Amino acid sequence: MNKILIIGAGRSATALIHYMLDEACKNGWYVTVADSDLDAAKEKVGPHPCGRAIWMNATDDENRKEIIAKADLVISLLPPFLHILVAKDCLRLSKHLLTASYVSQGFYSMEEEVREKALIFMGELGLDPGLDHMSAMARLNEIREEGGQLTAFRSYTGGLVSPESDDNPWHYKISWNPRNVVLAGQGTAQYIKDDHYKFIPYHRLFSQFELVDIQGMGQYEVYANRDSLLYRNSYGLDDIPELIRGTIRHRGFCEAWDALIKIGYTNADFPILNSENLTYNQLTEAFLGNTPRDGSVKEGIAKILNISTDSEIISKLEWLGIFSRKKISLKDATPAKILEEILLEKWPLKEQDKDMVIMQHEFEYKKNNKNYRLTSTLVMNGENSTDTAMAKLVGLPLGITAKMVMAGKLTTPGINIPVFKEVYELVLAELEEMGIAFKDSLEEI
Amino acid sequence: MNKILIIGAGRSATALIHYMLDEACKNGWYVTVADSDLDAAKEKVGPHPCGRAIWMNATDDENRKEIIAKADLVISLLPPFLHILVAKDCLRLSKHLLTASYVSQGFYSMEEEVREKALIFMGELGLDPGLDHMSAMARLNEIREEGGQLTAFRSYTGGLVSPESDDNPWHYKISWNPRNVVLAGQGTAQYIKDDHYKFIPYHRLFSQFELVDIQGMGQYEVYANRDSLLYRNSYGLDDIPELIRGTIRHRGFCEAWDALIKIGYTNADFPILNSENLTYNQLTEAFLGNTPRDGSVKEGIAKILNISTDSEIISKLEWLGIFSRKKISLKDATPAKILEEILLEKWPLKEQDKDMVIMQHEFEYKKNNKNYRLTSTLVMNGENSTDTAMAKLVGLPLGITAKMVMAGKLTTPGINIPVFKEVYELVLAELEEMGIAFKDSLEEI
Repeated sequence: MNKILIIGAGRSATALIHYMLDEACKNGWYVTVADSDLDAAKEKVGPHPCGRAIWMNATDDENRKEIIAKADLVISLLPPFLHILVAKDCLRLSKHLLTASYVSQGFYSMEEEVREKALIFMGELGLDPGLDHMSAMARLNEIREEGGQLTAFRSYTGGLVSPESDDNPWHYKISWNPRNVVLAGQGTAQYIKDDHYKFIPYHRLFSQFELVDIQGMGQYEVYANRDSLLYRNSYGLDDIPELIRGTIRHRGFCEAWDALIKIGYTNADFPILNSENLTYNQLTEAFLGNTPRDGSVKEGIAKILNISTDSEIISKLEWLGIFSRKKISLKDATPAKILEEILLEKWPLKEQDKDMVIMQHEFEYKKNNKNYRLTSTLVMNGENSTDTAMAKLVGLPLGITAKMVMAGKLTTPGINIPVFKEVYELVLAELEEMGIAFKDSLEEI
Repeated sequence: MNKILIIGAGRSATALIHYMLDEACKNGWYVTVADSDLDAAKEKVGPHPCGRAIWMNATDDENRKEIIAKADLVISLLPPFLHILVAKDCLRLSKHLLTASYVSQGFYSMEEEVREKALIFMGELGLDPGLDHMSAMARLNEIREEGGQLTAFRSYTGGLVSPESDDNPWHYKISWNPRNVVLAGQGTAQYIKDDHYKFIPYHRLFSQFELVDIQGMGQYEVYANRDSLLYRNSYGLDDIPELIRGTIRHRGFCEAWDALIKIGYTNADFPILNSENLTYNQLTEAFLGNTPRDGSVKEGIAKILNISTDSEIISKLEWLGIFSRKKISLKDATPAKILEEILLEKWPLKEQDKDMVIMQHEFEYKKNNKNYRLTSTLVMNGENSTDTAMAKLVGLPLGITAKMVMAGKLTTPGINIPVFKEVYELVLAELEEMGIAFKDSLEEI
């Protein structure tokens, strides 16, 4: 085993590629970085003795198979819908596979064959999902081993802008996939509180945020994720009376974003024919439908949102330019795509801007008739717009796991996510060596 | 050509099957009705000299092909996702194909081959889509032929309960696919008014209904459909300043349905694990999330809807039983599925109940410097819960078109919808002979 293939050289691949190249030289491995954008791959690999960049078309069956056939371990950073093609090839050609994406049903249907061939297929190895599983499971298992009985588990993550680089009224900049920023929260958020289910539909989600104290950072807004209940079983929390996973935002974000949802700007379900002939103001007006109004589009929007035109929310919307007379540049685009274009222009991470990732877990448990709360927090700032905290925290858990597979230290075959000790112990230990560590505080409650 | 295959013997197939059996005897044809529920097919065909019922598994490639191979014309009433399988077989085996469903992109990709083989593949031959296209195009073309210039086209359809059988506070009963009743309107409604696009997201759609005068019937509520702009081109209305298609409901329906949407009851995106352990009251409570409240679940719901607990809307919700302490009977069901179950119990069309279909088109146009409005209205009541207006108006346009294909009167090959004269003239003429006719009134405006 000495050949590693990384498929995908996009924004989130930088830290992973650099880590794997370094490790390759130390261990006598060779890294191939494949992307349909050969220049992007070349730029990330550079002239390196232990790696090279190649062109690859992941949708071309022949090309994909040929490249995968030459590897021992494949790391796929492709968009989720393409992973399954890579996974099928890896199964047929008997290659190990790691990804940072959610493990889909399509993957689990291969489980038996993967196990029979003693292959390691592991997903959810990035930040969220990924590091959240590892850091939470380490503490959950420790609490259980010491006889604690869990009564609540809350887990929050946010990909944010660092306060020192925060210079816009939304207090948000784009440090990850902008499409996912726009579509975040679509569906129904689900969690458990006081032993009862809670289901929040998308159109009410961002108005039902909670304020949460982040250790050492003050108060942040948190809205509930779709997937809180998904891990109930794999975390071993089937009977816990409180279980919530949420997304962290700076204060003032959620109710303004809620306005964009209520207006209709996050809808990706239909293309607007000839959108390039509309101004932003005309598009915003279109969402008013038959709402009766006397005045401007802004007044109409304030009316459907049931707020004053002087409100903070309206001024944030105005700052984005949704009332401007400028022409929309995209042709036949969905509202979500048009909003994405706006945000890329208004919320860019400028070259010297620092992003910030916050992850905080809160564990409540009973032990010896006492109640405790353990709060475990990671706050990490990026260096600049290329060397982001986001890219590091997505890439390093994946890279460290890859190293473990190559070194034969990870041996559990089958389709898995990193909720077991063999994985999380070594990953968390190496992250800590790099200075990436959670701060834990315990209090009696 | 003498063998007709009807695939699907469900609720909406009755009128079609009876019509085709009658015509078969008159014309020396033979009708085969195939369904996976053989008893349902047998019950509809009865002991008939010109037809028979057979068992068929539409998802079994061999079984499906074998049955289709024996037909000359195939009429598919399968759920939309199965049509494409039937269509591919029809293409390979050179059979004509008619359906009442929307023509999907998958169909259009077969266009060239269908045309080369001189086959007739026609979809949207039911009520809506179907009769709406035919009746609208007949009038649109007549107005244009007489030199009129269209300035507005509004087209409304509703599958309702007849006033004489209306005995529930929602003024609605289920006369068609209950799943579609629950999911109606999901996505973004689109129309054109005053030469401007209007886009209404689902969570505001039912609060933005319009009151429309239906000829001879009084005022009804209408909400906009997703698809108003879809037919702009095929109707020849590319530059019309007002274009809307909408759905008709009895008064008082829309804002109460809007409440169900706002609560979250129409969401089909996630299954509730162990939903059979919850009461309706507990499920409704789950949708409250973290909304602060002192009192009952009903008070909480009134609060998020921003209405009083004494309001008409709350009393309609209560009548449905969403605050009741009864256990939900469905296991691991989505909210939408649970709501469907409620509605099947609360809104059934009882055996002697009559349904009612309303279709109304409004055409505004200029001719010789005068402005006119032509209003064209069809109101049809069913006989009872089996012999519904809905089943007749879905089945008869399809049946008449099938007769025309069998008789060689319809010859345009390719993939089409019934927007051209060759089809709509004969269908509308025969419907009129049966007493199914629109009432037209013209006024200067």
